[in-house]
Amino acid sequence: MDQSQIIQQCIDECLKCMEACNTCYDACLKEDNIDMMRECIRLDRECADICAFAASAMTRHSPFSKQICELCATICEACGKECQKHKADHCQRCAEVCFSCAETCRKMAMQMQ
Amino acid sequence: MDQSQIIQQCIDECLKCMEACNTCYDACLKEDNIDMMRECIRLDRECADICAFAASAMTRHSPFSKQICELCATICEACGKECQKHKADHCQRCAEVCFSCAETCRKMAMQMQ
Amino acid sequence: MDQSQIIQQCIDECLKCMEACNTCYDACLKEDNIDMMRECIRLDRECADICAFAASAMTRHSPFSKQICELCATICEACGKECQKHKADHCQRCAEVCFSCAETCRKMAMQMQ
Amino acid sequence: MDQSQIIQQCIDECLKCMEACNTCYDACLKEDNIDMMRECIRLDRECADICAFAASAMTRHSPFSKQICELCATICEACGKECQKHKADHCQRCAEVCFSCAETCRKMAMQMQ
Repeated sequence: MDQSQIIQQCIDECLKCMEACNTCYDACLKEDNIDMMRECIRLDRECADICAFAASAMTRHSPFSKQICELCATICEACGKECQKHKADHCQRCAEVCFSCAETCRKMAMQMQ
Repeated sequence: MDQSQIIQQCIDECLKCMEACNTCYDACLKEDNIDMMRECIRLDRECADICAFAASAMTRHSPFSKQICELCATICEACGKECQKHKADHCQRCAEVCFSCAETCRKMAMQMQ
Repeated sequence: MDQSQIIQQCIDECLKCMEACNTCYDACLKEDNIDMMRECIRLDRECADICAFAASAMTRHSPFSKQICELCATICEACGKECQKHKADHCQRCAEVCFSCAETCRKMAMQMQ
Repeated sequence: MDQSQIIQQCIDECLKCMEACNTCYDACLKEDNIDMMRECIRLDRECADICAFAASAMTRHSPFSKQICELCATICEACGKECQKHKADHCQRCAEVCFSCAETCRKMAMQMQ
């Protein structure tokens, strides 16, 4: 893949991750057992917000895309680890998308100067 | 289309419009003739921001999705009208995506109570 | 007050409301009785986000400040009504700030063409 | 200053910097000599956006406040250096606020684990 393809893949993954995290946030807020979902609710929104921020930055060719994607990878990784602990489908699905997005963000960051 | 399909279509259109507007913003900032692009630069960012906001709101099932999409339609329409005036490919492409997104946002808003 | 004073007051109120809502969101996520805080958590973040969006729009003299502040007033009002139901200090404080911000946003919107 | 005072100072500086950057962005878009303001327009919006993001994160006690403030310091520094090149009052004022915000963000980041 050339650099513009890597950027496009990263934009797509960030938007997919924003969707998965917001879906998981909404579902966690409706869970019977909300007591154990506190951290998941919090990290889902942290992750959805930085993913949206990163996708927007990349589409406008922000000169800080590299650093923003590095931060995005950190937050995706943390959110994935929290979601992974919960059995609900929305959490398992979210964990998977978060880990994939973290990996793509790191690949993207390494490509940029 | 049922309601969840309309919402998904609207999310997809808003994200596509965010990309088109940010692409146009970046390209306008590089145009030789930047003097006549002032309004396009400004409206592109206004539109990209509300589109990202609307997409994020819909994916978390915000209780204000209807009102946010109505506002998004207004801003997309205004941005489309400005972009339409300029011959550059990125402006023409952006205008097209903005008008389509405005229409989908209005359809979405009418479906919601 | 002249128009620029009204805008500045509205920016200040929106930023204060963003702080109060995010503080309440964080505190609600730590409440023993999180079960009854679901709607408060959700509306706090909706309100914090639109308040930040509105303040940013006004500081850049967005041509859509009027419509954004109308939407902001609607969301502040809804968040204030939810917070008002809960006895916790952070909820009562948040309700007060939300109602005040809603009023200022409406005043601001009426001033703009 | 204790840690909560440092966080509050950092929130206040980020919001002040968001205002200064958006004010400068708006003024640059109206400058006769917009041709030489391209980078200033771009960096003003990058900086306003990350400052708003950082302030919102700190007010909700985001577990990523440290990393977000480190990124914010980098972007504030870059924006300050660009603004400093231009004689307009709004640019000079913005440069000053950016450098001050960068310093406070670094102080904040060093305080956090």
